[in-house]
Order: sequence, then structure tokens, then C-alpha cells
Amino acid sequence: MTDPNLGFGAAHDKGFCLWFTGLSGAGKTTISKLIEEELTKRRNRLEILDGDVVRENLSKGLGFSKEDRDTNIRRIAFVADLLSRNGVPVITAAISPYREIRDEARELMGPRFIEVYIEASVEACAERDVKGLYKKAFAGEIKEFTGVSDPYEAPENPEVVCHTEEETPEESAQKLIEYLEQRELIPPEPVAA
Amino acid sequence: MTDPNLGFGAAHDKGFCLWFTGLSGAGKTTISKLIEEELTKRRNRLEILDGDVVRENLSKGLGFSKEDRDTNIRRIAFVADLLSRNGVPVITAAISPYREIRDEARELMGPRFIEVYIEASVEACAERDVKGLYKKAFAGEIKEFTGVSDPYEAPENPEVVCHTEEETPEESAQKLIEYLEQRELIPPEPVAA
Repeated sequence: MTDPNLGFGAAHDKGFCLWFTGLSGAGKTTISKLIEEELTKRRNRLEILDGDVVRENLSKGLGFSKEDRDTNIRRIAFVADLLSRNGVPVITAAISPYREIRDEARELMGPRFIEVYIEASVEACAERDVKGLYKKAFAGEIKEFTGVSDPYEAPENPEVVCHTEEETPEESAQKLIEYLEQRELIPPEPVAA
Repeated sequence: MTDPNLGFGAAHDKGFCLWFTGLSGAGKTTISKLIEEELTKRRNRLEILDGDVVRENLSKGLGFSKEDRDTNIRRIAFVADLLSRNGVPVITAAISPYREIRDEARELMGPRFIEVYIEASVEACAERDVKGLYKKAFAGEIKEFTGVSDPYEAPENPEVVCHTEEETPEESAQKLIEYLEQRELIPPEPVAA
């Protein structure tokens, strides 16, 4: 990534935060990995703060009450802000069900904050049931499961919506790449030699 | 900070982590602020992860048992690694009393990790008692206070030692700036016009 021609340091990226929000199984992790692949091709950095990784490294011991969820999301916002204000692009890929806390994150990061609604119905997510969690949630084995026994507040004015029941993950990722290109937050696609 | 001549993005800094360790009142925060001033003059970035800021934003609810201290320090290391591996210089300024967890942070960050022992005796720190905490600790009003009623394990092979009973904060900061210059982790002092 370091270009020695630039002297001390190197070219770096523009900081932004793609703040994914959506139900478990809606496609957050899948789409974030496709964007990572594309940005790697363009030699642009990206850090993904995935829900599970953050629960392990920043929020172990927290549960799924509203209070604990809010604390978890505030920590993600704190770290996403630290990175993005230093020019590091970030995707946060946690459910982040509550509008109020997402709006706090928006206030913290200002124009660097890009809300992305990864939209799919509970029925569609339950049918996919990648982690087998919906089955357990419907059987009452998991309490406080977003969309089943816990609320999900959809965003009102997200910058981008990915309808993952109608788009493939590749199409959703492409839509986000085009959004970032339009805002000149990432370099253009490399031209084939 | 953005130099438009460099095209997309801008010059950035080299990532490292000055991992301060030392008793409460040894001088960690004071020295970190002096380094921040100097790096700002050189137009180099720096994030300071101060003990108090981290307790508020990442570790609210954690106490001062060995287990909770370890969790707190691991979170600091997680964030310092995220930043420094993306070219963002960091100072962590928490007591971080346990050698084992500091060594974990060293392993995580490899050559980016620079251990700095901010050294002062308990007696000297208690005499300064900037926050009035030692008085309370000696009176038994604060339990688990590092250096009084809780262990502090000094580093065995720190990259730099600042003896804050014999050096002024300015001298300690200067020593660290010179260390960073020698390793070419920061740009040289700007030449007066």
C-alpha cells in the first residue's frame, strides 16, 4: 500500500463509515466482504467491525437488553469514529436495531456517516436462517431476538437501501461501490492494462 | 492535513503504538499531551487513548479486579491495533499494571508496539497526588489502588524509560520524540523559514 514516491508516509484513503443496519441474516456480513474484496483490488483500505467480532473484543459480558445493546452500539460508534476521522474507511455490520443510537452515531461522525439499510423481511431472513438462530427464536429458545421477540426500528432516511430479497449480494455491493465513487470517497475502478 | 498535490487521498503517517505504563500520577497523561503538541506542529496525526477516556467509552461497568483490568487493557490493545495497523499513531495512557497483558498487546502489534515505562516511585506519585487519589487509597477509601493495595508489575525490557522524578515532562517527551525520529516513525523537526 505504501508508495515510496510520495516521500514520508504514503497515499491514504478517505475516512468514511458505512453503517449497516438490518436483521440477522439480512446480508450485512456477506455484502461487507464483497465490498472489502473490491476495495482491496483498488488498493483502498477497509476495516470491518462485524457484530460478532465486536461482541467478542469490545463487549464481552454484555447481553441483549436495550441498555446493553445501546452500550454495544455506542462502543462500535466510538471506534468507527476514531478510525474514520483518521482517514480509515470502516463498515460496521451489527444489527443496531434502535434508531436513536444510530442517530447518535450520525451526530458523532457527521458527513462521514453513511447509513445503509440492509433490508429483508423477517420471513425471508428466517427462511435463509444461515446460523439456525430463527428456528431457535421461534421456538422460544432465544429471548430478545431482533425481529422476533425484540424490536427492530428501520431507518427513516438511510443514504442507501439494499433490498436483499430482490438484489443479489453482488448487486447490493455494486450499488454501494457506485455510491462511494459518486461521493469520491474511493478511487475509480482500475483500468485494465 | 490533506495535501492536494498528492492526488487521491493525502500524505499519512506511519502507524505505531507508544504503550505507556506506570502508576497513577507518574506523568502518563502530561507527557502524552506534550507529544501531541509536538506532532501537531509536524502535521503528524496522533490519537491518545487515555485511561479515563477508555473507561468511559469502552469499559463502563468494569471494575478494578485483575479480570476487569485485563479486559479493559485487552480492549485498549484491540483499538490501538486497529488504528496503528492503518497508519494511525497512537499513545495508550492507562496504568496497565500486568506484564502478561502488556505482552499480549506486544504480540498483537509486533514491531508497532513500543513499551514506554513512565517511572516514578509510589512515594513520589503520592506526594504529587494530582487527583487526590493516593490520600484516599492510603486511608483505605479506595480499594484495589495500583501501587498501594494492588500490584504493579514494572516492565522488564521496555523500549524507553522516562524517569519522571529526575526528568521534567518536557525532557521525557523529547526523549520519546528522538526515539520516534531515530526509528523514522515521524517526520523530522520542521526547519524554521
